[in-house]
Amino acid sequence: MRPLTLAAIVVTTFLVLVSSSRAADPLPSWNAGASKSAILEFVKRTTTEGRSDFIPEKDRIAVFDNDGTLWCEQPAYFQLLFALDRIRELAPQHPEWKETEPFKSVLAEDLKEVAAQGEKGIAQIVAVTHAGMTTAEFNTIVRKWITTARHPKTKKLYMEMTYRPMLEVLAYLRENGYKTFIVSGGGVEFMRMFAEQTYGIPPEQVIGSSIKTKFELRENKPVLIRLPEINSIDDGPGKPENIELHIGHRPVMAFGNSDGDLQMLQWTTLAEGPRFGLIVHHTDAEREYAYDRSSQIGRLDKALNEAAQRGWIVVDMKKDWSQVFSDSPQ
Amino acid sequence: MRPLTLAAIVVTTFLVLVSSSRAADPLPSWNAGASKSAILEFVKRTTTEGRSDFIPEKDRIAVFDNDGTLWCEQPAYFQLLFALDRIRELAPQHPEWKETEPFKSVLAEDLKEVAAQGEKGIAQIVAVTHAGMTTAEFNTIVRKWITTARHPKTKKLYMEMTYRPMLEVLAYLRENGYKTFIVSGGGVEFMRMFAEQTYGIPPEQVIGSSIKTKFELRENKPVLIRLPEINSIDDGPGKPENIELHIGHRPVMAFGNSDGDLQMLQWTTLAEGPRFGLIVHHTDAEREYAYDRSSQIGRLDKALNEAAQRGWIVVDMKKDWSQVFSDSPQ
Repeated sequence: MRPLTLAAIVVTTFLVLVSSSRAADPLPSWNAGASKSAILEFVKRTTTEGRSDFIPEKDRIAVFDNDGTLWCEQPAYFQLLFALDRIRELAPQHPEWKETEPFKSVLAEDLKEVAAQGEKGIAQIVAVTHAGMTTAEFNTIVRKWITTARHPKTKKLYMEMTYRPMLEVLAYLRENGYKTFIVSGGGVEFMRMFAEQTYGIPPEQVIGSSIKTKFELRENKPVLIRLPEINSIDDGPGKPENIELHIGHRPVMAFGNSDGDLQMLQWTTLAEGPRFGLIVHHTDAEREYAYDRSSQIGRLDKALNEAAQRGWIVVDMKKDWSQVFSDSPQ
Repeated sequence: MRPLTLAAIVVTTFLVLVSSSRAADPLPSWNAGASKSAILEFVKRTTTEGRSDFIPEKDRIAVFDNDGTLWCEQPAYFQLLFALDRIRELAPQHPEWKETEPFKSVLAEDLKEVAAQGEKGIAQIVAVTHAGMTTAEFNTIVRKWITTARHPKTKKLYMEMTYRPMLEVLAYLRENGYKTFIVSGGGVEFMRMFAEQTYGIPPEQVIGSSIKTKFELRENKPVLIRLPEINSIDDGPGKPENIELHIGHRPVMAFGNSDGDLQMLQWTTLAEGPRFGLIVHHTDAEREYAYDRSSQIGRLDKALNEAAQRGWIVVDMKKDWSQVFSDSPQ
């Protein structure tokens, strides 16, 4: 045997081993432990024909919260950071904002004062940043922001702050015939601008909060105008309500991280047949953020209390994940 | 060659010929003509790689109205006939209905008087037949009705009054990588009870009018209560608005039959790239019904005027379809 051939065999064997070890571990960013085992075991027993827990492919529906479950949500929901950036961008055309709340505080970077403006302030921010334009115009604005803006702490692109372990779960479920949906408090059109690229989830499988739109023919060209009027808040009880409206199946797997996901977890898991609920618990102050019961954003209190009783998996981010961020978009 | 072998070859050849002629005509219930050619030609040029009109699979979205487009809508929308049947079924528990409109007229089978009760009357009928129960309870009621109730004129099951030529179009589009959606004025949960069986369209691809629901935990069991409150009327401009909310892609093909589909046809076809609009024109009083500009149900007036200007195909049901009804559910 010539040395070159031997080398070729060694390399080939190595590649086969690597690829088969990859095939053997679809969740390489998950450390061995109860969380990882629970995911693997549930998928195996619901997708193996002949087992009593087998689920036909059309019923394999898995729903995922986005903020805090698929990507980071600190120091504030990224969509709020988008809105604040947008106000700064529009400010030169609105000199009056320097003297008017909530814009004055946004421009002064005084987030506490912005928060103090309450719901009325948020509604005004949403109205000028999310409404009064066509859906196509809004999509262009979001697309530009999401591909250029950077996170205040990590300086990463926001899309690089999706969680690699969760991207692995999404891919693993799809490989096993599960249909993956986002069901999030975030704006539906906002999330669609990156959901396909980052999560492999097409627009029709993204469910979120929404504002009303209005159809118009403008010089023979149809447009949808975004109105400053809430259509649906996809949070808390709104999640199962929207799951029924948009999907019309009861999911068998639900993934969340906060009390806003409580009713979605209940709706998914408190029913006949095999059911799976998982909560991402943010325990890693070093690599990400650590917060739960007293956090203003992504508060996890009631759902954490219920988890043990309901048999929901609580992921300890620090312990269970060998890597946190995806870094480069997938 | 032994006779048996010869016979086997003849039979096999015959079967191959039959199956290849079937493969050659995916729309056997469509008579040769401009409508059939337009469908075949559009699908071919948008799915052949290398052609300038090629559409990637993820963007192959086709939307279908239901009433009058996929199944019959005369002498009244089938969902209204369901509601009236339901009132007759509930009447023994409501002796007061004998004296109260609109129930009195429903029980007297006086549809003109029911119509004279206007929107308020319809709202009362919807409230008692479509709300005040859980989604699961409603689904059971619809399922029972749809599998047993019969059409007043044809005596067929309603599911047997889906249009065979349109079922062929649905199957043909899906074979060519198109994702098919229902976008109809009918109730979303009502349509889901037969859409998968009759049309091959899963619940998450059914968009329709909806009422609000309310999540509740009842003795540790989550339910969604149907409320007597409109969430969305999926008709006219509501169709493109809901297409954006639920699908988030602009469709490339739209199929309708009435002015309620006008804005969906405009939204789909008045845009860049290859676009296809089709109107089913009810011209067959013998095999089905003939109606258009002056019909109370499924009025087709404005959309018919626009069809030529916009290049929408107008199907002449009498001339273009060799068969109308599917008869047995597919």
